[in-house]
Amino acid sequence: MGILITGGAGFIGSHLADLLIAQKYDVIALDNLSLGTKENIRHLFNNKKFRFIQKDLRHLDELKNIFRENQFDAVFHLAANSDIRDSAINPGIDLENTFMTTWNVLECCRLFEVDRFVFASSSAVYGKTTRALTEETGPLCPVSYYGAGKLAAESFISAYAFMNNIRSWIIRFPNVVGERATHGVLHDFIQKLKSDPKQLIILGDGNQKKPYVYVRDLVEAILYVYQKADALLNCYNIGVDDQISVKDIAKIICEEMLLEDVVFTYTGGETGWKGDVSRYQYNLKKINSLGWKAEYSSGEAVRLAVRSILSK
Amino acid sequence: MGILITGGAGFIGSHLADLLIAQKYDVIALDNLSLGTKENIRHLFNNKKFRFIQKDLRHLDELKNIFRENQFDAVFHLAANSDIRDSAINPGIDLENTFMTTWNVLECCRLFEVDRFVFASSSAVYGKTTRALTEETGPLCPVSYYGAGKLAAESFISAYAFMNNIRSWIIRFPNVVGERATHGVLHDFIQKLKSDPKQLIILGDGNQKKPYVYVRDLVEAILYVYQKADALLNCYNIGVDDQISVKDIAKIICEEMLLEDVVFTYTGGETGWKGDVSRYQYNLKKINSLGWKAEYSSGEAVRLAVRSILSK
Repeated sequence: MGILITGGAGFIGSHLADLLIAQKYDVIALDNLSLGTKENIRHLFNNKKFRFIQKDLRHLDELKNIFRENQFDAVFHLAANSDIRDSAINPGIDLENTFMTTWNVLECCRLFEVDRFVFASSSAVYGKTTRALTEETGPLCPVSYYGAGKLAAESFISAYAFMNNIRSWIIRFPNVVGERATHGVLHDFIQKLKSDPKQLIILGDGNQKKPYVYVRDLVEAILYVYQKADALLNCYNIGVDDQISVKDIAKIICEEMLLEDVVFTYTGGETGWKGDVSRYQYNLKKINSLGWKAEYSSGEAVRLAVRSILSK
Repeated sequence: MGILITGGAGFIGSHLADLLIAQKYDVIALDNLSLGTKENIRHLFNNKKFRFIQKDLRHLDELKNIFRENQFDAVFHLAANSDIRDSAINPGIDLENTFMTTWNVLECCRLFEVDRFVFASSSAVYGKTTRALTEETGPLCPVSYYGAGKLAAESFISAYAFMNNIRSWIIRFPNVVGERATHGVLHDFIQKLKSDPKQLIILGDGNQKKPYVYVRDLVEAILYVYQKADALLNCYNIGVDDQISVKDIAKIICEEMLLEDVVFTYTGGETGWKGDVSRYQYNLKKINSLGWKAEYSSGEAVRLAVRSILSK
């Protein structure tokens, strides 16, 4: 018995493994190591409550064998494509890695009677709207293939929950930053500034403004929702109250790198790339009512994450 | 040039072909004839504005050839699994026939630059709720694999629309009845009463109550929305204002079969089968504001459909 984390060697999955083990759960981390790394979980290799299996979720028959050989109390399904920008030129990436992987795991839960399923979803399921994103009332009109893959996965989770009494938690993440992240705007900017500390080219007009959650806040929230919400199908936004603009992220990075008088230039346009949702804001009433609030604001989360990248 | 109807030899697709041809469009009907029949379109075979291609949408490479060889102005994508009850025991049916077929057609639209896409969706995307089903505010929590397949398809349509400027119309149907239907509660009851005109066993408690639209009303509405709504992504419920209960459907059938004193017995429970949404009601403000209203009520639609079945 134990908890299966798919994507368990990845950025968020490995933090979740740490937290679950700290709370005395047995954890099996499954990862194909395409984005995740052994480095992220090496500190757990000697822990009796931890086991790692290298496997690609796209192979349903092999996945069935793992479910046949192990009894899982719950699955935390985090494995997915995690680069919205890359998949914008090839919709097949999110079909395969975001949607079909979820369907394969759901099928295994149905066939091997695992009745607790936690899903890492995303603000990207909502698409572009000026309204604060609200769980039950949407709208749900994704503009990226990544958002579509996540919403398509949510659709089947809903049906599997009702058809098979699989208690499910759909948790919609904002941008997530912190130790072990491999890509994103922070990495891009730091990389560019290391090459040229005099200037920084910023995609879009720099006014893209989003909530950023610190990864340790996020995994605490995932586990909190899992332990406290007990409907058959539970859907929760996880986020922070404030947002930070790309321009302000650039300023924090320059401060932390002790760079002065960096010239910012902008490629222009409202979004950084096609499929990007340049501004959004969560309605967090539901998770706040459940008793959870993030410890770090967007600005604090970004600063912590920048320090962790620079310290490496 | 012309309009491609997938599922064009099916119950609804063949009526849509009739209407499009009456309105001077060129039509290519594509169907694998698993549920559709040549009988449904035989009257169009000598029409110069009509062409039929037998093909299974699950084979992406073959579908690409069709798009390579033809230039389509628009695709009306109606092909799907159409039996919610049957797929309840095998989620793979709706994954393959409802969702993946849609993804394949979307891919062809993207690759061969077809920029108008009309999708036959369903009330099943909403799931169970006591609220009147409303396009933008959901909730969207399907309880059947069929509903999940349709919502997953909608998710990718939304992303493909925004990523590739494919103007899209998502149209959510209620129960549909009329000439050329092949299955459903009307057929079941008539079949049973022909075997035993003294009694009728009704699944559930008989109080399941849903809107039923007459198929000719429906295809008119599809074309109306296509011609009048011009956002990049247009989502509309099509339905009727009233609902009819399963018990009242049984009464209409007995009347039309001239049967008296039939004893109704009920298997009990709120729903006829797992995954069934036993009661729902549409909010039709959006399509009414666009200027469309059904000609026939639920009761009238059912009576017309029953007469057409009995006259065969």
